[in-house]
Amino acid sequence: MNPTNIEFLNLNREKVIRDPVHNYIHIRQKIIRNLIDTPEFQRLRRIKQLGTTSFTFPGAEHSRFTHSLGVFEITQTICDNFEQNYKSSSSQDGLWDDSNRLVALCAALLHDVGHGAFSHIFEDIFHTDHEKITGQIITDPTTQINQVLSEIDPKFPAEVASIIDHTHPNQQIVQMISSQIDADRMDYLLRDAYFTGTDYGLFDLTRILRVMLPYEDGIAFLSNGMHAVEDYIVSRFQMYQQVYFHPASRGMEAVLILLLRRCQYLYQHEQLTKDFSPELLIPFFEGTFTLQDYLNLDDQVISTYLIYWRSHSDPILCDLVNRFLDRNPLKSVQYHHSQNDLIQKLSELIEEAGYNLKYFTLKNFSKDLPYDAYHPNAKNPQTQIEIMLPNGNLKELSEQSPLVKAIAGKFQIDHRFFFPREFLRRDEFMAKTNLTNSKKIAIFEEFQRIIQLF
Amino acid sequence: MNPTNIEFLNLNREKVIRDPVHNYIHIRQKIIRNLIDTPEFQRLRRIKQLGTTSFTFPGAEHSRFTHSLGVFEITQTICDNFEQNYKSSSSQDGLWDDSNRLVALCAALLHDVGHGAFSHIFEDIFHTDHEKITGQIITDPTTQINQVLSEIDPKFPAEVASIIDHTHPNQQIVQMISSQIDADRMDYLLRDAYFTGTDYGLFDLTRILRVMLPYEDGIAFLSNGMHAVEDYIVSRFQMYQQVYFHPASRGMEAVLILLLRRCQYLYQHEQLTKDFSPELLIPFFEGTFTLQDYLNLDDQVISTYLIYWRSHSDPILCDLVNRFLDRNPLKSVQYHHSQNDLIQKLSELIEEAGYNLKYFTLKNFSKDLPYDAYHPNAKNPQTQIEIMLPNGNLKELSEQSPLVKAIAGKFQIDHRFFFPREFLRRDEFMAKTNLTNSKKIAIFEEFQRIIQLF
Amino acid sequence: MNPTNIEFLNLNREKVIRDPVHNYIHIRQKIIRNLIDTPEFQRLRRIKQLGTTSFTFPGAEHSRFTHSLGVFEITQTICDNFEQNYKSSSSQDGLWDDSNRLVALCAALLHDVGHGAFSHIFEDIFHTDHEKITGQIITDPTTQINQVLSEIDPKFPAEVASIIDHTHPNQQIVQMISSQIDADRMDYLLRDAYFTGTDYGLFDLTRILRVMLPYEDGIAFLSNGMHAVEDYIVSRFQMYQQVYFHPASRGMEAVLILLLRRCQYLYQHEQLTKDFSPELLIPFFEGTFTLQDYLNLDDQVISTYLIYWRSHSDPILCDLVNRFLDRNPLKSVQYHHSQNDLIQKLSELIEEAGYNLKYFTLKNFSKDLPYDAYHPNAKNPQTQIEIMLPNGNLKELSEQSPLVKAIAGKFQIDHRFFFPREFLRRDEFMAKTNLTNSKKIAIFEEFQRIIQLF
Amino acid sequence: MNPTNIEFLNLNREKVIRDPVHNYIHIRQKIIRNLIDTPEFQRLRRIKQLGTTSFTFPGAEHSRFTHSLGVFEITQTICDNFEQNYKSSSSQDGLWDDSNRLVALCAALLHDVGHGAFSHIFEDIFHTDHEKITGQIITDPTTQINQVLSEIDPKFPAEVASIIDHTHPNQQIVQMISSQIDADRMDYLLRDAYFTGTDYGLFDLTRILRVMLPYEDGIAFLSNGMHAVEDYIVSRFQMYQQVYFHPASRGMEAVLILLLRRCQYLYQHEQLTKDFSPELLIPFFEGTFTLQDYLNLDDQVISTYLIYWRSHSDPILCDLVNRFLDRNPLKSVQYHHSQNDLIQKLSELIEEAGYNLKYFTLKNFSKDLPYDAYHPNAKNPQTQIEIMLPNGNLKELSEQSPLVKAIAGKFQIDHRFFFPREFLRRDEFMAKTNLTNSKKIAIFEEFQRIIQLF
Repeated sequence: MNPTNIEFLNLNREKVIRDPVHNYIHIRQKIIRNLIDTPEFQRLRRIKQLGTTSFTFPGAEHSRFTHSLGVFEITQTICDNFEQNYKSSSSQDGLWDDSNRLVALCAALLHDVGHGAFSHIFEDIFHTDHEKITGQIITDPTTQINQVLSEIDPKFPAEVASIIDHTHPNQQIVQMISSQIDADRMDYLLRDAYFTGTDYGLFDLTRILRVMLPYEDGIAFLSNGMHAVEDYIVSRFQMYQQVYFHPASRGMEAVLILLLRRCQYLYQHEQLTKDFSPELLIPFFEGTFTLQDYLNLDDQVISTYLIYWRSHSDPILCDLVNRFLDRNPLKSVQYHHSQNDLIQKLSELIEEAGYNLKYFTLKNFSKDLPYDAYHPNAKNPQTQIEIMLPNGNLKELSEQSPLVKAIAGKFQIDHRFFFPREFLRRDEFMAKTNLTNSKKIAIFEEFQRIIQLF
Repeated sequence: MNPTNIEFLNLNREKVIRDPVHNYIHIRQKIIRNLIDTPEFQRLRRIKQLGTTSFTFPGAEHSRFTHSLGVFEITQTICDNFEQNYKSSSSQDGLWDDSNRLVALCAALLHDVGHGAFSHIFEDIFHTDHEKITGQIITDPTTQINQVLSEIDPKFPAEVASIIDHTHPNQQIVQMISSQIDADRMDYLLRDAYFTGTDYGLFDLTRILRVMLPYEDGIAFLSNGMHAVEDYIVSRFQMYQQVYFHPASRGMEAVLILLLRRCQYLYQHEQLTKDFSPELLIPFFEGTFTLQDYLNLDDQVISTYLIYWRSHSDPILCDLVNRFLDRNPLKSVQYHHSQNDLIQKLSELIEEAGYNLKYFTLKNFSKDLPYDAYHPNAKNPQTQIEIMLPNGNLKELSEQSPLVKAIAGKFQIDHRFFFPREFLRRDEFMAKTNLTNSKKIAIFEEFQRIIQLF
Repeated sequence: MNPTNIEFLNLNREKVIRDPVHNYIHIRQKIIRNLIDTPEFQRLRRIKQLGTTSFTFPGAEHSRFTHSLGVFEITQTICDNFEQNYKSSSSQDGLWDDSNRLVALCAALLHDVGHGAFSHIFEDIFHTDHEKITGQIITDPTTQINQVLSEIDPKFPAEVASIIDHTHPNQQIVQMISSQIDADRMDYLLRDAYFTGTDYGLFDLTRILRVMLPYEDGIAFLSNGMHAVEDYIVSRFQMYQQVYFHPASRGMEAVLILLLRRCQYLYQHEQLTKDFSPELLIPFFEGTFTLQDYLNLDDQVISTYLIYWRSHSDPILCDLVNRFLDRNPLKSVQYHHSQNDLIQKLSELIEEAGYNLKYFTLKNFSKDLPYDAYHPNAKNPQTQIEIMLPNGNLKELSEQSPLVKAIAGKFQIDHRFFFPREFLRRDEFMAKTNLTNSKKIAIFEEFQRIIQLF
Repeated sequence: MNPTNIEFLNLNREKVIRDPVHNYIHIRQKIIRNLIDTPEFQRLRRIKQLGTTSFTFPGAEHSRFTHSLGVFEITQTICDNFEQNYKSSSSQDGLWDDSNRLVALCAALLHDVGHGAFSHIFEDIFHTDHEKITGQIITDPTTQINQVLSEIDPKFPAEVASIIDHTHPNQQIVQMISSQIDADRMDYLLRDAYFTGTDYGLFDLTRILRVMLPYEDGIAFLSNGMHAVEDYIVSRFQMYQQVYFHPASRGMEAVLILLLRRCQYLYQHEQLTKDFSPELLIPFFEGTFTLQDYLNLDDQVISTYLIYWRSHSDPILCDLVNRFLDRNPLKSVQYHHSQNDLIQKLSELIEEAGYNLKYFTLKNFSKDLPYDAYHPNAKNPQTQIEIMLPNGNLKELSEQSPLVKAIAGKFQIDHRFFFPREFLRRDEFMAKTNLTNSKKIAIFEEFQRIIQLF
């Protein structure tokens, strides 16, 4: 596409959207406005960015819609900087060719469009894959997104999709959207910090964008901005520790997993739909869902079905549904392999108290790799962060920063065993279970004894 | 209730909730924790604070849940200040009696608990009243909120409700929660400013709380903090102008009103429920809803039904539903009585283009009274803001502040006529309507001509 | 100067300076870097932006140096916006001609370079005029600023000076730097708010800059940004009321005025320089100062002389010096003409207590005109703020905004009578004066009685 | 002192001071107000917190006065929290005894009162010691600070001083004011971040104060707040790297050191005071200064003398003075021991160009220990940061935090060799030196060649 066409594609007048993180989102191209106006993109308003985290940080009710706009805005700023300071003048100079701007912006805007209701949880239970679906939404001719993109060029949708699945030949664009320091991560850290009200996620975005530069094989950072990059890595590390791994949010996730697991069991045994049929979910129980079925689902539909199921005839489902709607998260204990026998004992006590372990306990873990240098033989090799020294040489970040070295390459893993809250609250426990009082007391006290051993 | 009992009611250890506006919400009493844990209060997580405003300011996805916690926290800070600086030592001294703290805190927390899905819109169509329902939720023995409150004392729920409906004899508590400068308004201005990302709603909360003091008949403000109060009034004025009255949000409201109006018509003509029955809404169509029916509804249920109706057999409903889900607000023009004939002409053109005026146009207005002095003979006399001079005399705010005087007593009213967006976009209009091309062009151009006259 | 030359004048690489208000100041031209490096500009580091205000708001220690950089940065952003969105293509189209950028930037940077130590106070006592001196510094061939500017073109200094004294024919540049909503005021409001720690001065700079546009006779604002402009006017009004007029800062100003008045008296009577001669001030006592004498003076020199005078043989000077260095402001009472006889009585009591009225009391006033429409026959007619309606017509701001109308054209004047603090503190008063105890008590109590009458 | 006396010492009404970092400083005791009003404390207004840093970060013009108020406010908040949550009920319970509040507050307020003009630089040249002088100001009966403190009790000044020199038996108070995470460091990090406009120094003060608790031997932190403590350590580390070690500020320090070194030489050779005698500095040249001499000096006096010396007859002094006043920092290169021979070569070139090495070059280093565990045998053993586990056991911070472990115990040292700027700027160099052109070029190019080798 030549620059004249791009000119033609511009809006007569820039449109702005207020955003608390970037102040304004600036929309200059018709295609961007039209993509935002599609049903597939508007659907992101109905999907929370952080799933169950708002049960712990109640301000975190922001959607994937605002995040997607934020990734777009950061990408646009990167393009503006590259165009102003590192404009390519020949195809081999390793600088920025602004004819790639439009594909970069579209990929940035659309990178999350395949996310589903309560994404990871839903994916685990129903074996969907949001990245694959993002690709489908972009390339399937039935979607409005595809139709808007195709107006540029029939091959344009496939090019946008190739950025998102990392197969595009231009690594500058790929790394802008997806790397260890990309527009996606930078937006979500700032945004999640803003809406949760924590400070951990803050770093100096303006500075990072100023020292970012394109080179032949991707993106690097001037060494005089190295500390801002370091600060970003540390912020990210802390957000995982403090917000994303929070045990109470994960306790709510656990309830949702168990609840959907129970639904599926009931569906398979024809006990789910007796009074009420959750039509929009059935294709997923059946494993026959279409792209349109997928796009009909969102957080709010699931929540509505739960309201119907508050009085379902299956007591296990009822119990779990009410725990979820009324925010009664499973409690948990952090454990190590070597403590498996203790977990076994806790499980036995829970079963003895009359609970079905399959639907009231869960072993689960959270995992993050804060930063990693490039290991060509690794399973999923990461693009490492390159620092450009004043003499033009590149050096990998953790070689330069002792702080980053300290956390690089080390997975943060948090294994937890989840169980009902009443096992830590005597009054609730006594009121809830069906045994004799003395039996109850014995179980409760033994549980407390063991839990102290972790 | 005597202080010893209150002591007994405290949590062993203060619990905190992160909040981006007040940093932390501090929970010290068991009863407050238990109220937050009730299903009726948790339901507020599923009701947006600003309804359709997030279609214009996409960050504004915050719920009435966080707002209610914020009003609670401000009220608590007021009580702390009053207890520290203006502690009553005899029943007639007009100072603060801290035995009222608990009732104040409960009223603050619960003041919005009766809000329904998309509140004003829903109320208009189905003739519900969120203030009355708040009272019912507090006093009806079937709710968990009532049960938690009754543990303090069987009369306690009624006392809490009397704060909210302004009939409580102690005007200090009433004005804390509900007056022209109360914990409710102060929280929502700051919160809405934060989540929309605008600066208009900012004012110096710390300063206002420091100069607030109780007196015999209510609450006053030391004159050395008068400018902070003035700033609050101006901020409120600007938030109404800039955010709450925003034409695009109101265009989305218009779609929702017309859509529910159409649903009701279809229900009355037995055409709504053919494929799918919106069970949770039917009691409202029938006019026979119970308190539990009311509590089952939230923004998300409505949104889910709309997804079902995307392919409803009624084309008018379909059209409106898709406008709402995909954010296609009605456009509008601001008008004055004297321009009714122009509105009439616009309406005729819309009808001529094949639209049913009843479901595709709307006259509507927004209204606010930024501040008012007390007019004892007015319909709804307002409690005026009192400034306490150094000599102890009280003076009404607008007598002291020329800025406030300028806007006091003047209603801000914004009358608008709403119509489909395609009447301003030639391409969409040509694609949409069913007439001959020349007819379309004639209608469209005449419409543009008239709209210029406003 | 043609664009090629400008290109030539650019730095190889943009230089940035951290600034808490604008995040970064971006320096792109060699001439700007060189101007910042001159002694005359560096001297602004030694002159506080707000004079004695830091005695009341201790964070407000910022200098005219950072303010000047801020005005430069805002002006640069305005030029960038104008160049991008309103680029002139013919000399008569009323749009922005970017060949004016350099003169605009230089004028912005240098507009305050003639400010002296404790500016207004010094000017009153020694009859200097900082605006005239700014012009001299720019046009006098002995200054380095002049030499740097002359490298562009021998006529360039005069052109820069003509922006600052408003005689330049291009009103767009003049109004950018100097009007009722200019880069100067916008920077100082935000900056003073930041460093004092108050919120009053905050407004939405980004929004205002986005809606600013050039037209034939100056600068206007798009009507969709009218509320941001309104907010700026209100912020400015509140900063005057809350910060700039603060009685304690003005009480410190009063001490400084009386102290310099006493110095001058002593100098004229050859009693000032007996032990120590304040060389850098003497040209001002003599009325024979040169431009270089003026540039040698700053806040810090004055402060150093005061330290020398702590033990001066004149008791009046000693007393005043210690009040200033140790922050003991004169107290004051606000009064109206009609209360002149009460002021007279207070004065008599102060004299009776042994104070020389000429050096221990002061009548003074602060005055501001928050906003005014254009009055062609006024003494100093103001350029009014123009709002550009969607149809392209201009309307004066206060016609559009009821808030601004409320404060437009009304001078805020605050007349005060200043006197020593001990007249309000019994212990200090009793310790200080030389009379019999009963006499002292009589004077003190009569003073308190009268002061209550204001 | 018993609580009744404390009550007696309170102000009738709390006084507040606006502060941009803590919003308000709250002053409740007469003694605190009176200490702030002393000349010794007011003098801190005339001493910059960060010395020459404002030459690099121009917003950083804040004084030790505001920092001292900030340390006071943080200490007060700690006392409030301890009093509310950890009140001692017997002398052996290791909890907080609030009768220590006053001594803690006074020590917090006064901990920096002995700081002199450009402190470290001045100390190096004139062999003064600000910590010792702080003690003298507090305990010497001629100071007003001593007189105010003595009103409480004749032994009170000595008790306050013993907090500051760490000899007080109560380690809780000592650690509040002086440890690896104390009110002093917490205030300066936040304050320096605010005034420089960087984000590095930000951390969650509210959270840290909430998890701080007293125990028998000092102060610990609840483990659920460990990450906030970790964030503070990282912030501190980054402020040192980014702000405190900034080469340009250190280049200005170098100028000042060399300049004072030259002054001292000239004084010893009776060439300094020919035209003008810097009276307030002479006691320091003579080594005979009194406490009052020390208190008469501040940043501003030094700056004033420099203005006098702009035209001093000694060309070396002139040159250095103008470099300082007009912000022309020495440039520098970072080096390692092993590169001493390269430094030697640079020095020879500088000498060859006609510069006196003693006054135009400097080897200097910056050093910081970001955090350290306790090493009882170390020279200056540090109090380590203790984390209190849920079971009540204490664990040293770096054992719990991999991030902190990464930087603990490792000194950050930055050795630099400073030299005049013209050695990096061809034009300036050619204009400045006195040699033949070809000689100049040879020296300059050889210098560039060597500097590339570092």
